[in-house]
Amino acid sequence: MSREQRRAIDEQLRRAPKGAGPVPVERMRAGFAALISEFPVPVAPRQSGTTLAGRPAILVEPSADPRPGTILYFHGGSFSLGSPRTAMALTANLVLRTGIRALSLDYRLAPEHPFPAGIEDCLAAYRSLLEDNDPSSILFAGDSAGGGLAVTTTLAARDAGLPMPAGIVAFSPGLDHTRTGASMAAKEDADPFFTREGMARTGELYLAGADPAQPLLAPAVHADLTGFPPILLQVGTNEMLLDDSVRLAERARDADVDVILDITADVPHVFHTFTDTLDEAGQALDRAALFIKQRLA
Amino acid sequence: MSREQRRAIDEQLRRAPKGAGPVPVERMRAGFAALISEFPVPVAPRQSGTTLAGRPAILVEPSADPRPGTILYFHGGSFSLGSPRTAMALTANLVLRTGIRALSLDYRLAPEHPFPAGIEDCLAAYRSLLEDNDPSSILFAGDSAGGGLAVTTTLAARDAGLPMPAGIVAFSPGLDHTRTGASMAAKEDADPFFTREGMARTGELYLAGADPAQPLLAPAVHADLTGFPPILLQVGTNEMLLDDSVRLAERARDADVDVILDITADVPHVFHTFTDTLDEAGQALDRAALFIKQRLA
Repeated sequence: MSREQRRAIDEQLRRAPKGAGPVPVERMRAGFAALISEFPVPVAPRQSGTTLAGRPAILVEPSADPRPGTILYFHGGSFSLGSPRTAMALTANLVLRTGIRALSLDYRLAPEHPFPAGIEDCLAAYRSLLEDNDPSSILFAGDSAGGGLAVTTTLAARDAGLPMPAGIVAFSPGLDHTRTGASMAAKEDADPFFTREGMARTGELYLAGADPAQPLLAPAVHADLTGFPPILLQVGTNEMLLDDSVRLAERARDADVDVILDITADVPHVFHTFTDTLDEAGQALDRAALFIKQRLA
Repeated sequence: MSREQRRAIDEQLRRAPKGAGPVPVERMRAGFAALISEFPVPVAPRQSGTTLAGRPAILVEPSADPRPGTILYFHGGSFSLGSPRTAMALTANLVLRTGIRALSLDYRLAPEHPFPAGIEDCLAAYRSLLEDNDPSSILFAGDSAGGGLAVTTTLAARDAGLPMPAGIVAFSPGLDHTRTGASMAAKEDADPFFTREGMARTGELYLAGADPAQPLLAPAVHADLTGFPPILLQVGTNEMLLDDSVRLAERARDADVDVILDITADVPHVFHTFTDTLDEAGQALDRAALFIKQRLA
């Protein structure tokens, strides 16, 4: 049954039109938003616009009996696409399943604002939250590029002498702009979502000439994670980014950091969005919710 | 706070008397039972003696509203020590936290019954359960050597043409009698529980001359896990056996098997027993319980 679900999703993603040649970033953004709009957003949580350190954000609140704590959410989109709206299915599902509020940050995007603008915005948002909240009540979460930001913002916070958040949850995070993971080639055919060319294109927009061989651009390869809070990494095996998570988990283990590497076979990048057609999506979100509740207890 | 708990447990284990030179297996068994008797067993589940395929077993049932399914539990003790009683804290905690009954098997031990007697008993117990139960309603769980048996019994079942159980939960499993994991040396000082000499001694009792370089004795190195059900591995970083889990997770990933490698830093072998003094023990058991409920839903 579930093997059939996994196959159907693979076919669905492969039917999506693939751009031939370079596409303007505005058209990529529209296409990404259209793709994401197909996924169901749970209705229960309340959403309201706000700002965090000068950037727009969406506050997502459980409808009743909120538990204490804040999930600071960073959306995906290869650092150049997406918004809190495109990640709302994921954010709302975490709020719904934890009873904990989330703040989803509209950080600046490439190419208008390349590296390290996004990390600066995420760090500023964390600093702003720390004014009224204990670090033990804040957890970073994100998908894809946003999962990468959850990790690199923690690196930046540690190196700035800030206290650590309570934990990190990353769905299919992008953690290596050097693109040296073995899965980059080994999973190229199995990955129905990414192409090497597409990743190179958005990577260039974000790097804007920066050397990728540094902790904030390739934490899975170059970051020392000493002092990090517990990390949950959830990833599929049909992902060119699989080894980003595998190698970050190794680095966490080497630094004596609690780390859960939670791998679902035969599912694509950020499979968590397929809650309506894939049992494993909701199950992974439930495991993430338990991890978040344990960290923010 | 929790870092202090982790330190206290390390000191407690290091105070335990270490035998000098070879110790008769009967004295090892008594010492193991005495050590284990210090850990709290939750009172709620009901226990009753039974048999499974001719071997004694303990049926552990939730006190009310049982959920469907059966946890087939294999106790730890280096294949030569222990019993369902010495693992009762772990078994009862799983029953309490899932609401699902467990059957804990008193499989035959070395040196009286070396490899593959234990696996044969576990496989016979599974066959016997299959007479009245759907395989999707049975999950294997175990600690230490019993975690190894959860994996090797699944291998033996697959190779015998039996259907796969719904999942595998292994706490600090022993998965490599070739003892080739890097953690065997790297974690020798950090591990307050095992010594190389002690592991060599019990290993010899179990092997009784068999070549350890085979799937049923070193699944982390030699087993192809194709067709396996989802696996949850929970292990501490202060374990010489850490890389047994790390490498099994790699093999599962390579075989497109769902696998969660759940690592807690600075805790010892089967840290789950320390529910009264270590927050991470109960939290890990809660994560295991969620995994079990998802698999047996």
